[in-house]
Amino acid sequence: MSSLTKDTDRYFEEIEEGESFTVDAVRTITEADIVNFAGLSGDFHPYHMSTTVAGDSDFGERIAHGNLVFSVAEALVADMNPRSFSYGYDSLRFVNPVPIGTTLTVHREVVETEPYNDSLGRVVYAYEVEDQAGTTLLACQHITLVERQPGE
Amino acid sequence: MSSLTKDTDRYFEEIEEGESFTVDAVRTITEADIVNFAGLSGDFHPYHMSTTVAGDSDFGERIAHGNLVFSVAEALVADMNPRSFSYGYDSLRFVNPVPIGTTLTVHREVVETEPYNDSLGRVVYAYEVEDQAGTTLLACQHITLVERQPGE
Amino acid sequence: MSSLTKDTDRYFEEIEEGESFTVDAVRTITEADIVNFAGLSGDFHPYHMSTTVAGDSDFGERIAHGNLVFSVAEALVADMNPRSFSYGYDSLRFVNPVPIGTTLTVHREVVETEPYNDSLGRVVYAYEVEDQAGTTLLACQHITLVERQPGE
Amino acid sequence: MSSLTKDTDRYFEEIEEGESFTVDAVRTITEADIVNFAGLSGDFHPYHMSTTVAGDSDFGERIAHGNLVFSVAEALVADMNPRSFSYGYDSLRFVNPVPIGTTLTVHREVVETEPYNDSLGRVVYAYEVEDQAGTTLLACQHITLVERQPGE
Amino acid sequence: MSSLTKDTDRYFEEIEEGESFTVDAVRTITEADIVNFAGLSGDFHPYHMSTTVAGDSDFGERIAHGNLVFSVAEALVADMNPRSFSYGYDSLRFVNPVPIGTTLTVHREVVETEPYNDSLGRVVYAYEVEDQAGTTLLACQHITLVERQPGE
Amino acid sequence: MSSLTKDTDRYFEEIEEGESFTVDAVRTITEADIVNFAGLSGDFHPYHMSTTVAGDSDFGERIAHGNLVFSVAEALVADMNPRSFSYGYDSLRFVNPVPIGTTLTVHREVVETEPYNDSLGRVVYAYEVEDQAGTTLLACQHITLVERQPGE
Repeated sequence: MSSLTKDTDRYFEEIEEGESFTVDAVRTITEADIVNFAGLSGDFHPYHMSTTVAGDSDFGERIAHGNLVFSVAEALVADMNPRSFSYGYDSLRFVNPVPIGTTLTVHREVVETEPYNDSLGRVVYAYEVEDQAGTTLLACQHITLVERQPGE
Repeated sequence: MSSLTKDTDRYFEEIEEGESFTVDAVRTITEADIVNFAGLSGDFHPYHMSTTVAGDSDFGERIAHGNLVFSVAEALVADMNPRSFSYGYDSLRFVNPVPIGTTLTVHREVVETEPYNDSLGRVVYAYEVEDQAGTTLLACQHITLVERQPGE
Repeated sequence: MSSLTKDTDRYFEEIEEGESFTVDAVRTITEADIVNFAGLSGDFHPYHMSTTVAGDSDFGERIAHGNLVFSVAEALVADMNPRSFSYGYDSLRFVNPVPIGTTLTVHREVVETEPYNDSLGRVVYAYEVEDQAGTTLLACQHITLVERQPGE
Repeated sequence: MSSLTKDTDRYFEEIEEGESFTVDAVRTITEADIVNFAGLSGDFHPYHMSTTVAGDSDFGERIAHGNLVFSVAEALVADMNPRSFSYGYDSLRFVNPVPIGTTLTVHREVVETEPYNDSLGRVVYAYEVEDQAGTTLLACQHITLVERQPGE
Repeated sequence: MSSLTKDTDRYFEEIEEGESFTVDAVRTITEADIVNFAGLSGDFHPYHMSTTVAGDSDFGERIAHGNLVFSVAEALVADMNPRSFSYGYDSLRFVNPVPIGTTLTVHREVVETEPYNDSLGRVVYAYEVEDQAGTTLLACQHITLVERQPGE
Repeated sequence: MSSLTKDTDRYFEEIEEGESFTVDAVRTITEADIVNFAGLSGDFHPYHMSTTVAGDSDFGERIAHGNLVFSVAEALVADMNPRSFSYGYDSLRFVNPVPIGTTLTVHREVVETEPYNDSLGRVVYAYEVEDQAGTTLLACQHITLVERQPGE
């Protein structure tokens, strides 16, 4: 099991490109997660909810909502640095379907750091979600703004 | 209240730039939604879960998870066209905080249509989520691939 | 608070017309109940989910799903007699809207007992659900079949 | 998959006996649905909650609450016509047990239309719920009142 | 199935050491219960949530949270006597792991009764939770204070 | 907001009496938490579920289940040290009622460390839960067994 350590209180200048962090196989997507996510989001598409329709589809079985996988993965690795603000996501891609029973490994890496203005720096993380066999399921870039060290 | 009609079975060639669709004020984000989304995603950040911490923050009150708003909005307007496949999202931005009691209006518009390959076309939708006062809360671009009409 | 005693192991012959049972004010319908019921049933009608749409309607506020009230009331008073089988419901009527914060009182009364065949008797219960002011919210008739005493 | 089109804005005079609508196999009843419905309704009967007790019963396995099946089916087919009001249900019958893994098909048909008063007409729908093998699980009649066309 | 009768309105003097009550096999711990309890408590330990991590552990499979088993068991047998107040628990022990699919039998016995002060008596219950094979899963002592009969 | 750092991989010999850790005001107990905990545990006591009954009681309002507060608090501070095993809890006391809207602060302190056998040491933590005004709500002792350093 991966350590659960995440970023804590750091200024922009303390964050370096290439830093990475992996949460290894800590959560399996279950039927209950899919049922609960349908109920929360309101997305009851039969690819998620019907064994019959999903079974007859190219997937051959029910698959998780893309946003369920995204939301769980984001919660596993998202930065807890109180000096950091979420700006948004780019290039969110649902690369492969996620059937019930998939265990998620999430990898986060700093891929870009540049000054944004006098008080903030822009830090971009690449997130990658894999299943237990190492197949990529989801990828995205998380753009954050982080406070700069006073007097720098 | 908006009509709940969504796209149905259409080929790429039948979809036109500028087409738009609005789901008007049909869902209010509640405290129960936030509690349930925390439990599903695992994101228990005190800005969502603590009246004390959130009350002392710049927000002044608890706010919804960005991905909760994204997931609900996406379910309200997402295309049900069986010839359409979700490719991913770009430029997902959480423009303004969403406090408990915000009622979402979601607007979807076709902003780009172009051939992708011989069998598929690329259709990009802009989603915009507003509160009851017309303030933008969230914006993103949804990239989809849609089957082309056979023999064209 | 009412006693929570319910019917236990009894034959048809031991049940008499006019018997009654009241569960007094033990459960309040909350916003969380409505959100959870929408997610379970898939009924996200804005009269239940939107403060804006419901506020502009004749109700003036969000109201509980009829089947939520029916399901909660039924669980509060339903017979636990292992010799009794549920046959169905008649005359299910949603008499008045149930806003958030309504506390349910449920009254059950035996209104009909007659032999059904050699081994079963038919017992009909009238259920009535009231709010804290005594206004009727829901009424129905529950038809059950109960084992007859052997050798009668 | 069935079209998800439902009635939209129509007057009583536009609705005809024999009209029908089917939602085909879009939702499978899961263990999570039963657990969540028990928690919402408060009905923890061991026929729904205990593999041991249900396994030793005539059912041979856990079965869904009747009101869970009713609530899900009703949400799948219920009329979204804003000129229509739910009056109640008659002849609600739980015809066969619904084990975990059953996929619901719901059929709705207009079986009765008659003037109710000067401004409303009475429209009765028959609902029928079947499993994937075509066995009837639940049936009921939904009584609605629909606005009459002004000046008729 | 056990009778669901619990203590009702009784004074301290009416409760005797050795009295016991068993709720027999009425509830099976499901995957949905574990997912829902993680979401409610915030305890997403991979022994509960990851088939991979739990499968590689000494348990060999996911196990229920101890406090989930404790909370369910306590709800099954807790005293409904309105003259009784919960004082606390002692010697709460998680004796054996509880995998998904375990059906709980809960046994409650009065193990101590002694006057506490002029108006209250102290009643201690021993709770014991077993699986379907009779293996002990959890044990604790529930300390309660019960009103004494006036004038004794 | 408190740091979320918890114990990580440590041997018994590295843990010292008096070490303490506080999670400060990160979670507010909501109505949705109570509704969800009732549904999960099966404890629908009207002190938790009825504004009418709870309002007429000495509490004057609905209060959270003791085990809900215990479960949330335990998840906030429980040790993530993979060399540590939970043995049980002693002296679990529900010191004051917890109304809706209470924000929990949880304090954990090592109060006892002693060798248990050749390979394990016994570490006892005192947990104390307070509300936003510093009133104690719940206290317990958590008994754990921790691996001893090889060769000591």
